[in-house]
Amino acid sequence: MNTEANSTLSEPRVRIPFDTLRATLAAIFERHGTSAGVAAVLADNCAAAERDGAHSHGVFRIPGYLSTLASGWVDGRAVPQVHDLAPGAIAVDARNGFAQPAYMAAHAQLVAKARANGIALLAIRDSHHFAALWPDVEPLAEQHGLVALALVNSMASVVPHGAARPLFGTNPIAFAAPRAAGWPPLVFDLATSSMAHGDVQIAAREGRLLPEGTGVDAHGQPTREPRAVLDGGALLPFGEHKGSALSMMVELLAAALTGGNFSFGFDWSGHPGAQTPRTGELVIAIDPQRTGAADFAARCEALVSAMADAGQTRQPGGQRHRQRADSLAHGVPLAQATWDELQRLAGGVSA
Amino acid sequence: MNTEANSTLSEPRVRIPFDTLRATLAAIFERHGTSAGVAAVLADNCAAAERDGAHSHGVFRIPGYLSTLASGWVDGRAVPQVHDLAPGAIAVDARNGFAQPAYMAAHAQLVAKARANGIALLAIRDSHHFAALWPDVEPLAEQHGLVALALVNSMASVVPHGAARPLFGTNPIAFAAPRAAGWPPLVFDLATSSMAHGDVQIAAREGRLLPEGTGVDAHGQPTREPRAVLDGGALLPFGEHKGSALSMMVELLAAALTGGNFSFGFDWSGHPGAQTPRTGELVIAIDPQRTGAADFAARCEALVSAMADAGQTRQPGGQRHRQRADSLAHGVPLAQATWDELQRLAGGVSA
Repeated sequence: MNTEANSTLSEPRVRIPFDTLRATLAAIFERHGTSAGVAAVLADNCAAAERDGAHSHGVFRIPGYLSTLASGWVDGRAVPQVHDLAPGAIAVDARNGFAQPAYMAAHAQLVAKARANGIALLAIRDSHHFAALWPDVEPLAEQHGLVALALVNSMASVVPHGAARPLFGTNPIAFAAPRAAGWPPLVFDLATSSMAHGDVQIAAREGRLLPEGTGVDAHGQPTREPRAVLDGGALLPFGEHKGSALSMMVELLAAALTGGNFSFGFDWSGHPGAQTPRTGELVIAIDPQRTGAADFAARCEALVSAMADAGQTRQPGGQRHRQRADSLAHGVPLAQATWDELQRLAGGVSA
Repeated sequence: MNTEANSTLSEPRVRIPFDTLRATLAAIFERHGTSAGVAAVLADNCAAAERDGAHSHGVFRIPGYLSTLASGWVDGRAVPQVHDLAPGAIAVDARNGFAQPAYMAAHAQLVAKARANGIALLAIRDSHHFAALWPDVEPLAEQHGLVALALVNSMASVVPHGAARPLFGTNPIAFAAPRAAGWPPLVFDLATSSMAHGDVQIAAREGRLLPEGTGVDAHGQPTREPRAVLDGGALLPFGEHKGSALSMMVELLAAALTGGNFSFGFDWSGHPGAQTPRTGELVIAIDPQRTGAADFAARCEALVSAMADAGQTRQPGGQRHRQRADSLAHGVPLAQATWDELQRLAGGVSA
């Protein structure tokens, strides 16, 4: 599948209505081994990333999903088990399925618990998270007015600060806070690694050196050569010891606290083609109406204004929302070849 | 007060029993305008930092505390008001007093709520935090077996990524997780700024250039000159846009969510000598017995072992615990001149 075509301006391009893209992706998932319910959740997530211009987690991911499903590493028909553990705590055993259906199985309960208790957590274990993390927090802020934090660990590819070998995952942290009515929430989603793997691949292709501190080679030595990082090397945490400490925190919260695997704690060698980490995820939701804040949304506006006054022209999440509005108005932009291939995978007549 | 003498090896040094140091600091606080209760809490916090070798937040801070008390900026006799807002949420109005007494006023309730609900939060507002942040999380892990996260905003001194003027505080994040019996918890406490102000001062004194990306001068231009940062310049966030996003999150969680001031939201110009930020703090405590984890402490041990196996020789918090054991066995090391001065401030006969 020619996913790189997306970035080639000379390539013929099409605009696909969001609902059409989502339905096509759902058909692909279901045709390649997931239940209809799982297909609907994954398609919505993947189409939303593409709609928002988050290409690294959009249709670019489809080959990885299908390769993993074909390998037998993930159960595309898993039915998550929800456990109500405490007034403020829900656990979900994803049963070796994808994280997003596990999250959706407990989403309404998480919202209700956050409202009733002021704060609540959702601990997902034995789950595969192969998507962007911001979709797990943004709706909590946008639709429910909650402040939300999500953490997920992944696969050993990041060398802890001062260590010699990779241990942590790229371990992202996502955060969302509601703004005043009419404004999209403040959202960020950041890997605790220096760089995403996809960006290293792009640097290798374009023959660019990496910034200092991005990664190490197969011998654990610092390198700026992207190929050396990709060929047996590893990434470093962002921000030296500080990012490393945060990455460790993600291992503890997303894996140890949930009962999921650490990023170094699973063995997929028996499943060639598997790409999805089998780990855990923690989501925390806070109701700002129960914390003593007079008017949280108004305070958010004050902070956003102050950031603009200080000269920060780009707000976290702003670019995604501009792209979203454009995609919803004019269709999601895709290379013609990509769209043809998606239709073929869905079992359609094209290509 | 000659606080720099602490680091001069040729200076005569003494070893002071921890309890003696703490009692002396309490006498100093009370003699300079705090209530006996506030004095006891601040003295315990400050003596503990010195005991653990965290000098930048130990007796080094005493002149700043006293200068602030003398300025009338903080109320050293404030009685915090505790509000039980929800099964998982407590708010404390520090009433323009220090954050630590406000925290202590609700500490037992926070522990009880975390146990009962799985997760609970403590939202402190209108508070002055002039100390290290790890003391606000470490006891939750060490004494109560809870996982804890604390965030506090401070004073406008950090330029948001891409902005021209300082807006955020150094906005630290502290985290603690309990390990198996007999081991101190995993603890980190990291400023979301590139460097602490004290370290910039030391670089200026020693004539060293700062690392790239540490700060800007008074015109908002990047500089490696420590004096340019100190003289009207500002710090940058650690880790570029990622640290900046985390610093923004601290403003939202520690200030907007609690009802405390933003780091740029208070005016102390009428109180020359004031050094303590009047902001807010958020503490989140999680009971790992209520999240589906089979044995959280054992998982922590597995992670610590794996980090050591990967070549990471220093664990977060390890150095502090070694210094603590030494201080408790042999007394807290201080320069003789520092100890003389502390005794004088306490109203004793020495010096």
